[in-house]
Amino acid sequence: MVENLEDYLLEKKLIVEKNLKDCVETINAPEELKESMLYSLMAGGKRLRPILLMLSYESYKPKNEKVNSSASALEMIHTYSLIHDDLPAMDDDDIRRGKKTNHKMFDEATAILAGDALLTYSFETITNDFLLSAEEKVKIVQLLAQSSGPSGMVGGQIYDMQAEKEKVNLKELERVHQYKTGELIKFAIIIGAYLAEAPEEDLSYLNEFAYYLGLIFQIQDDILDVTGDAEKIGKPIGSDEINEKSTFPNLLGLDGAIKQKELYIKKARIELEKTSARKEMLNKLIEHFGNRDH
Amino acid sequence: MVENLEDYLLEKKLIVEKNLKDCVETINAPEELKESMLYSLMAGGKRLRPILLMLSYESYKPKNEKVNSSASALEMIHTYSLIHDDLPAMDDDDIRRGKKTNHKMFDEATAILAGDALLTYSFETITNDFLLSAEEKVKIVQLLAQSSGPSGMVGGQIYDMQAEKEKVNLKELERVHQYKTGELIKFAIIIGAYLAEAPEEDLSYLNEFAYYLGLIFQIQDDILDVTGDAEKIGKPIGSDEINEKSTFPNLLGLDGAIKQKELYIKKARIELEKTSARKEMLNKLIEHFGNRDH
Repeated sequence: MVENLEDYLLEKKLIVEKNLKDCVETINAPEELKESMLYSLMAGGKRLRPILLMLSYESYKPKNEKVNSSASALEMIHTYSLIHDDLPAMDDDDIRRGKKTNHKMFDEATAILAGDALLTYSFETITNDFLLSAEEKVKIVQLLAQSSGPSGMVGGQIYDMQAEKEKVNLKELERVHQYKTGELIKFAIIIGAYLAEAPEEDLSYLNEFAYYLGLIFQIQDDILDVTGDAEKIGKPIGSDEINEKSTFPNLLGLDGAIKQKELYIKKARIELEKTSARKEMLNKLIEHFGNRDH
Repeated sequence: MVENLEDYLLEKKLIVEKNLKDCVETINAPEELKESMLYSLMAGGKRLRPILLMLSYESYKPKNEKVNSSASALEMIHTYSLIHDDLPAMDDDDIRRGKKTNHKMFDEATAILAGDALLTYSFETITNDFLLSAEEKVKIVQLLAQSSGPSGMVGGQIYDMQAEKEKVNLKELERVHQYKTGELIKFAIIIGAYLAEAPEEDLSYLNEFAYYLGLIFQIQDDILDVTGDAEKIGKPIGSDEINEKSTFPNLLGLDGAIKQKELYIKKARIELEKTSARKEMLNKLIEHFGNRDH
């Protein structure tokens, strides 16, 4: 395992992107649909979720191709959620990561269908993987559906829409993020460890660890919206406050949000400490999530 | 097995609807989301796909609860596709089956998310079923994803959109329907037979049978748009011609379409005859699909 986190992230990013491309290019589907799916899949991004899954696996066992289909499926789900989020009826965004959003590049109908196709194909991807046993496939499909469906990410979108309409407290804000992004981060950590046959008792600690990791990621996002460099984060500073979004700094003040982040970091470290995983890279990752500048 | 088709369809419809309700009501998700999912799931419809799955099973073995999760999942997929189809960016329909469409009853964002949630939850439903083995779950999830994803129903939507822009020939029209509705009908027939442990050689005959059954259903839909009773079919007559839609009567003339339907019926019967299934009810179903007046 590469011991420098930056190198590790880059190495895995390339693997993730190659797998995604191979996976979608071979689908027997209308060319226009594949083009639209690939456009958003290949539009960049940090690939943090699939990399997290790989890192979780490698904190127990050496690198293995067994993780690839789950990593691809996870990134497909994330991508579909961005396509649907950007639609006029949702966030109505024209640009993402410096490129036209899917419905601006193609049209709204195609964007809706490309999202549906990626969501559906993510499950097929798991079932097609001949490296996995039937039991493993079922476990992965089940947790992926739970994490991304009505009791996970999609539910989180609804909570988020509600939180935009009325002020929420800290507990409610944590719930929005737990559903909206936390559950998929949990999927990454848990499935990585599960495929690596991590001890049963580790999984519940990892569950807690992933919960705090998700919150660290989100709170830093909110903090960057106040203190960040517009060019580095790729969007104007202060937009959350202008839009009166429920964020940690809006709720706790900037100092309060930074303190809250430190608390989440501490808790994540405590949970990780309880596991038998190799902790070096995961600890670096906590640091990375908490201190990133974009 | 009830031997009268009408009674059979009614008996199964009630079972399907009860299962769907039970299934969704217990999800741990935002109330508003569940309400929107249930609204469209419970908005009526003939439930032909799940009933077909049950009938396929019972053509090999006596009634069994093993089919219930697949039947529910299939109807969830069908319902999500209707919700997304009705959106302003797609068909822009305000009314379906005499009720407001989902985005008219709730709002567009909620409708998109309710569709996403139903699609995702359909896969979870399979994995949660303790009556199925891991191998059975994988087979069902795989075929459901194939039938409904980019190489199935979603791909068919794209072909359909293309067929609206330019005139297609008979082969291309058959392809639209094979993808758009045929693949899910195949799923119903194949998974029913598979769960009933039908002989391997039957499955390829059933595959062909299902292909023609789907076309019979679709061609009769097109014929009813020309000859039907507006009140019975719940939409104005002649709308396909006005909209210059690619339909069998527009392509072949009404007489040609009726002849084509007879050809599909003949071929469906031939394929069915090759199987070892109990054929009485399935033959009645062919008749029912080909001669229904709504």
